[in-house]
Amino acid sequence: MKVQERLTSIRDNIFFEIFVVFVIVVSGVIIGIKTYDSVSSSVISTLEVLDYSITIFFLAEIVLRILAEKKKIDFFKSGWNVFDFVIISLSVIPASMLESVIALRLLRLIRVLRLITFIPQFKVIIQSLFTSIPRVFYVLLFMLINFYIFAVAGTTFFSEIDQLRWGNVGLSMLTLFQTATLEGWPDLMYEAFSYNSYSWIFFVVFIILNSLILMNMIIGVIIDVVVRENDEELPENIALLEKINKRLDLIERKIK
Amino acid sequence: MKVQERLTSIRDNIFFEIFVVFVIVVSGVIIGIKTYDSVSSSVISTLEVLDYSITIFFLAEIVLRILAEKKKIDFFKSGWNVFDFVIISLSVIPASMLESVIALRLLRLIRVLRLITFIPQFKVIIQSLFTSIPRVFYVLLFMLINFYIFAVAGTTFFSEIDQLRWGNVGLSMLTLFQTATLEGWPDLMYEAFSYNSYSWIFFVVFIILNSLILMNMIIGVIIDVVVRENDEELPENIALLEKINKRLDLIERKIK
Amino acid sequence: MKVQERLTSIRDNIFFEIFVVFVIVVSGVIIGIKTYDSVSSSVISTLEVLDYSITIFFLAEIVLRILAEKKKIDFFKSGWNVFDFVIISLSVIPASMLESVIALRLLRLIRVLRLITFIPQFKVIIQSLFTSIPRVFYVLLFMLINFYIFAVAGTTFFSEIDQLRWGNVGLSMLTLFQTATLEGWPDLMYEAFSYNSYSWIFFVVFIILNSLILMNMIIGVIIDVVVRENDEELPENIALLEKINKRLDLIERKIK
Amino acid sequence: MKVQERLTSIRDNIFFEIFVVFVIVVSGVIIGIKTYDSVSSSVISTLEVLDYSITIFFLAEIVLRILAEKKKIDFFKSGWNVFDFVIISLSVIPASMLESVIALRLLRLIRVLRLITFIPQFKVIIQSLFTSIPRVFYVLLFMLINFYIFAVAGTTFFSEIDQLRWGNVGLSMLTLFQTATLEGWPDLMYEAFSYNSYSWIFFVVFIILNSLILMNMIIGVIIDVVVRENDEELPENIALLEKINKRLDLIERKIK
Repeated sequence: MKVQERLTSIRDNIFFEIFVVFVIVVSGVIIGIKTYDSVSSSVISTLEVLDYSITIFFLAEIVLRILAEKKKIDFFKSGWNVFDFVIISLSVIPASMLESVIALRLLRLIRVLRLITFIPQFKVIIQSLFTSIPRVFYVLLFMLINFYIFAVAGTTFFSEIDQLRWGNVGLSMLTLFQTATLEGWPDLMYEAFSYNSYSWIFFVVFIILNSLILMNMIIGVIIDVVVRENDEELPENIALLEKINKRLDLIERKIK
Repeated sequence: MKVQERLTSIRDNIFFEIFVVFVIVVSGVIIGIKTYDSVSSSVISTLEVLDYSITIFFLAEIVLRILAEKKKIDFFKSGWNVFDFVIISLSVIPASMLESVIALRLLRLIRVLRLITFIPQFKVIIQSLFTSIPRVFYVLLFMLINFYIFAVAGTTFFSEIDQLRWGNVGLSMLTLFQTATLEGWPDLMYEAFSYNSYSWIFFVVFIILNSLILMNMIIGVIIDVVVRENDEELPENIALLEKINKRLDLIERKIK
Repeated sequence: MKVQERLTSIRDNIFFEIFVVFVIVVSGVIIGIKTYDSVSSSVISTLEVLDYSITIFFLAEIVLRILAEKKKIDFFKSGWNVFDFVIISLSVIPASMLESVIALRLLRLIRVLRLITFIPQFKVIIQSLFTSIPRVFYVLLFMLINFYIFAVAGTTFFSEIDQLRWGNVGLSMLTLFQTATLEGWPDLMYEAFSYNSYSWIFFVVFIILNSLILMNMIIGVIIDVVVRENDEELPENIALLEKINKRLDLIERKIK
Repeated sequence: MKVQERLTSIRDNIFFEIFVVFVIVVSGVIIGIKTYDSVSSSVISTLEVLDYSITIFFLAEIVLRILAEKKKIDFFKSGWNVFDFVIISLSVIPASMLESVIALRLLRLIRVLRLITFIPQFKVIIQSLFTSIPRVFYVLLFMLINFYIFAVAGTTFFSEIDQLRWGNVGLSMLTLFQTATLEGWPDLMYEAFSYNSYSWIFFVVFIILNSLILMNMIIGVIIDVVVRENDEELPENIALLEKINKRLDLIERKIK
């Protein structure tokens, strides 16, 4: 057996896959443990060694997976492989090259995302998220414009009252995002209420408009999926009907 | 080539459209930048000039679009064109004619809404919002009556306790809108609770009733759209079946 | 023309109906105006007279509607008529018979509910609310039991910490209703957190469980309606297919 | 009549079932009453006796239900029976064996869950909850990983600012759960905002991402159920079509 074939059989081995998933989980748990202050320094140094070993294991694993392909370049034809490759490459960057400890930790952290490539159900979730993007994207863009218009209006109306919340269009958009999550908006309203007794209109209109747009988006996505499901099912029906129709055509001609 | 035809070809040119979208976005960004206090006065005066140029550009553009029609009056047959025309007309009103800076700024602001006419997906969103209006309108009216009844009852019960929140039927409706968004309602309840230990019934009944009505509205809109989608698809099915039925009719008669 | 027929023609007259709707709206507005402190006493006395006239008008109207029936008893065969009759009867109770001004005001207030009987779309909303009751009722009962169990557990765990919120099973259920609306629950949790560091489990489990049950209810109601809609549409399809099938049966026999 | 048959007829008697439901409700009410401080000690001792009798009644009832089976072991073949058996067994544990009063009370409390086995609609709710588990489980797992990643990042960013909320990855996950329920998140954001003006990105991205995942889960469950319903209905349609097709086959051959 050739080396490449042996590597392929290792790669496709279910126990190897489970072991990789296990290592990914461990790599995530390590970063979690480090966030506890009470961890003793001896544990920390053990974790450092473990973390180092995991980096090397991941490197070895990705090299194995590249070599396991007949044509090495095929490895990069799958989006998920590229995703894996980028994550591992990033986590190999030596600490000395990075400005801060925070960046280092985050690069270690994103290795947990590799779980997505190993668990099929997660791929399905990601794909269904991407499928809903066309519909969701334009609605979110529309809401952004809606937010922007209300933010400029809000800044014009309320910037005198509360600099922190309505000081400029950026702060106002953040405040409107908060209002859109319906969190703490009555406080914002009553604050403005004492200056201008019509300010409630601004908030009530914004909340109702926003809810309607969101409701339409959710319904839109539901309809998209239902229609797609129906389209996959109907053809069977129609195909049978058309077969019957043709058959009748034949019978008709024979009778003549 | 006639002038009108040349104008039409300019109007339908994709680069011209992209340029108009670009100008609309710039006109929006300008108003946003102005909300920042830190902007130097030299930048402000540049923005003023830019803003002035944009107003002139929009005027020229709308004139072009009117002249590009064979029969000028056709321009006003499209609702979107009228929408565009009104927005641009409003933003041409000279500052001196307007009482306040706020009104001036808002008239500049609504020019951003022109994006809707240029991006087809936004038109779809607006149309689906309008499609759901018949169902939504009556439910919102029903909720308004529901709010009104609870507001009068709330004023009767709680006006002694908290003048700001339950002082009259108007304030009570605002307080109930807040309760309907589930924001800060426990504070309102515990305030009333200390006076009358049955006051929780008012809030719990209102919240449950309101949620049920809203749930029914959302489901109603979903059903509306699903049924409409089905109606568009089924005919193909039924049409085929009826064609088959007629054919059998013919065969039957021939056999006789 | 007989008196009864003349009354029927009045009752079914569209202008008469519009006038009744108008009077109902006025009767509602009157109670709303009275909640404002700034209303002068002369206006109040005018409103009192108006209110009195409306009561008499409603009485006359319901008598007219009863007499307009061929068989008087038929009037009470419609649930909506009984609803109308009860509301009007209640609002005729003389003020002297009622203990408090509050009860009097509420009896006036519920007259606004008569709008439901006059506006068909409102009837549809009410009916769709009632249609969803079988499904909703048992889920709400199930949630009530769920609330009760968590309330007893909550009282057992937290009654020492906060008597007002967790003092007994009644107060705990109210607190859990608040938690179910996701309003202010972190405060409740952190309060308990300082006593027992496992108390977060109680809240997180309750919120997730509750959301799942609610999600299932909403989906259940959607499915109920979608299936009902489909059942109304499919028969047409199946009926045609069975007709075709029978026809083929005939043809087959003739050929033999 | 044999003893076993007599027991079966008792078990299946509707009045016996209603009586058991009644006893279960009473057993729940007893625990509820005990949470009120104002209950006199004489009532408490009566309740203790009642509680004791209920335990004995439940024991007798489950023995009856086991003996009522032809083959005693069949009783344990139904999951609901095992559920009943475990609950009753747990509540028989003598108080002396239990460390605390709390554990004792909770064991009494879960007897209320027996209502589920007696009311068919509750079984349906539980089953539909379990049906949605495959879809929900992986999404919740995916969200857990999502939470974990954001929790580690959050601890890295904000642990200096607020030890109670972001002190370690466990506390951060709790804080993110709170953020996911949209409760009090603006306070968390503005707290972090004063240290780093980019911290809003963390919260806004987390909330939007989370909402999208949740929306996809809900839509996924809806689609699952709709597709399942359709699959149950379509076959009737297809079966008829295939029957017609075969019949035509026969006719065709005869004509030849």
